[in-house]
Amino acid sequence: MSDASSRTAADDVVLIEDGDGVRLLTFNRPDALNAFNQALWCAVRDALAEAADDPEIRCVVLTGAGRAFTAGQDLTEMADPSVFTPTDGSERPEPGYRQLMRVLETFPKPLLAAVNGVGVGIGLTILPHCDIVFIGEGARLKAPFVSLGVTTEASASLLLPATIGWQEASLLLFTEPWIDAAEAVRLKLALRAVPDGSLLDEIMVVARQIGAMAVAPLTTTKKLMLAARGTSVPDAREREEREFAVLVGAPENRAALDAFMTK
Amino acid sequence: MSDASSRTAADDVVLIEDGDGVRLLTFNRPDALNAFNQALWCAVRDALAEAADDPEIRCVVLTGAGRAFTAGQDLTEMADPSVFTPTDGSERPEPGYRQLMRVLETFPKPLLAAVNGVGVGIGLTILPHCDIVFIGEGARLKAPFVSLGVTTEASASLLLPATIGWQEASLLLFTEPWIDAAEAVRLKLALRAVPDGSLLDEIMVVARQIGAMAVAPLTTTKKLMLAARGTSVPDAREREEREFAVLVGAPENRAALDAFMTK
Amino acid sequence: MSDASSRTAADDVVLIEDGDGVRLLTFNRPDALNAFNQALWCAVRDALAEAADDPEIRCVVLTGAGRAFTAGQDLTEMADPSVFTPTDGSERPEPGYRQLMRVLETFPKPLLAAVNGVGVGIGLTILPHCDIVFIGEGARLKAPFVSLGVTTEASASLLLPATIGWQEASLLLFTEPWIDAAEAVRLKLALRAVPDGSLLDEIMVVARQIGAMAVAPLTTTKKLMLAARGTSVPDAREREEREFAVLVGAPENRAALDAFMTK
Repeated sequence: MSDASSRTAADDVVLIEDGDGVRLLTFNRPDALNAFNQALWCAVRDALAEAADDPEIRCVVLTGAGRAFTAGQDLTEMADPSVFTPTDGSERPEPGYRQLMRVLETFPKPLLAAVNGVGVGIGLTILPHCDIVFIGEGARLKAPFVSLGVTTEASASLLLPATIGWQEASLLLFTEPWIDAAEAVRLKLALRAVPDGSLLDEIMVVARQIGAMAVAPLTTTKKLMLAARGTSVPDAREREEREFAVLVGAPENRAALDAFMTK
Repeated sequence: MSDASSRTAADDVVLIEDGDGVRLLTFNRPDALNAFNQALWCAVRDALAEAADDPEIRCVVLTGAGRAFTAGQDLTEMADPSVFTPTDGSERPEPGYRQLMRVLETFPKPLLAAVNGVGVGIGLTILPHCDIVFIGEGARLKAPFVSLGVTTEASASLLLPATIGWQEASLLLFTEPWIDAAEAVRLKLALRAVPDGSLLDEIMVVARQIGAMAVAPLTTTKKLMLAARGTSVPDAREREEREFAVLVGAPENRAALDAFMTK
Repeated sequence: MSDASSRTAADDVVLIEDGDGVRLLTFNRPDALNAFNQALWCAVRDALAEAADDPEIRCVVLTGAGRAFTAGQDLTEMADPSVFTPTDGSERPEPGYRQLMRVLETFPKPLLAAVNGVGVGIGLTILPHCDIVFIGEGARLKAPFVSLGVTTEASASLLLPATIGWQEASLLLFTEPWIDAAEAVRLKLALRAVPDGSLLDEIMVVARQIGAMAVAPLTTTKKLMLAARGTSVPDAREREEREFAVLVGAPENRAALDAFMTK
């Protein structure tokens, strides 16, 4: 990995560029505002799992192509249960969401994010899984779970109060305001707000600094930080998944999704 | 509950007004600065338990009548153990404090508070059990446990460090300063300080916004947030109760209560 | 302890002054910037254990002699394993670090610190074990574990995210910036930054206020706060010690220590 390498194709749902000890991982469904469908969940999972195992890679930076970071779970898939139900009678695969979460929850290297635009749902709830987040001054965040008739994901029921405080998390989840970049920094969802035009340059300065450090002390330190969370993060996610399964498809959820799909 | 309803009597220790999906619960012992005696502990417990079960109620707002939020545990009762000792030989009832705590710790709907004046003891330690707190600009808070010869209550030994930070909690508990509204916001004991005259109007705007949301996603989300705390909150309270029982009635406590009662 | 007493000798590695219910404990290896060698770990441990048992002492203040708070673990000892290996064939003693940690993790009285100058390594990671920290305006802090080829100590993998936030802890551990006094306050590593010349006077005002309170309610309250942490703090330290043992002496660590020793 002495030279920067990149593997992209016009239809890749993620773009990957490796160099200077850093993997830059770009969500690449710009026409869908980088909404997470099965393909994207699984592509991000694969790119992270590969980075975890590659001794040349010291840290990963997440960002989005186009004007969004990510608009969250693809609601066309939430509205259509057949996405998860094979038609050939084979066993239903594990949802890509859950597969990505397991990799995120144990990712052994510093994980950075450059929030380059709108972050909705998982675009907000992924941030407490990241170690260092910079946000573009034009970006904004929102977590519309209750109004969609569902509930938190990605262990936000645990990590959001832990990160931004119990009351701020309650306001965010129960009243669903848009959060701008300055507010995201105040809430500790991001470390720093920077002009949109220099966002990637600024996060890459930090990423390359980490990229120059020795991999064993870095991964050991990150693993120790994760170990201090015990099993609280997957435990919270599993509680959420059980409740999500109850709420999805219920009248409040169907009405909200119908309103979305016919919009 | 299509119309606002209210049930009050001149001697009710709580006032209850229901409307727009919101229960407004007012501590109503203004002559005693809304100090918590057995009657008030139990009345608040009942009003919350009822709100938890009523599908029309989406959230509850706590506030105080008159110039205080609450002056804390009624010290005339702390000074008089007979309050808890039936004279007819029947079994000693569970203290109202503990009964209220159990309802608070599991309250499945957003709980808001409008801190309209002085909050002492439980008037401060109840706040980390609330999800969204606004405080009047003239209000102030204090936790005088050590100087009363006792120790924390309401799981403050856990929730105060978790909410305001370890060092701020230490300063608050070991030196017992008055905390004004701006400081309460800085410490994240409250989300917002508002002019006293518009306090109730402002919290009701948020409460009615929550009151318009679907009850199942709201309660599921609140329950998931509480579940992430595991049993840590009742565990902390039970440790506190054991230590409280050792300290109450000891010389430091008796001297402090005597000073209070003869004041 | 009605009068202030002090026990010092020119070669004492700690200075102790008792008075007004307060023990002032000064790290006293100024020529080594108060770096922690075996003698200092053990002397601080002894002074704290004694203070814990002395009913006249309500709280302890930690500070450093000369221009440093502490430069951290003495690297000449980290570079020389024979420090821990008796030459007479007797059993290897428990490292002083671990002995001090066990006393710190259970210290039953308010522990204050006046960070009077540079704090590196344990000079930073000891702060989340303190209850009230003031920092001199000229002081600065740093945690250079990864660049030394090792990892966190003193449960920093748990307590640093808990105290300053996950992202701030990541930035601090993965990029190792110098943190000045204002930043230390912003990060909640210290409560207050004060002019260097009045640092000790200002912390002693708070310490004497605590020194005048009743010892039983104070110690009960501190113990309840510690109990709320469960075994999470020693558990984190033990995980760190296991990883430290793997990394110390490995090539990255040897290279970093060699660079230091030949400087």
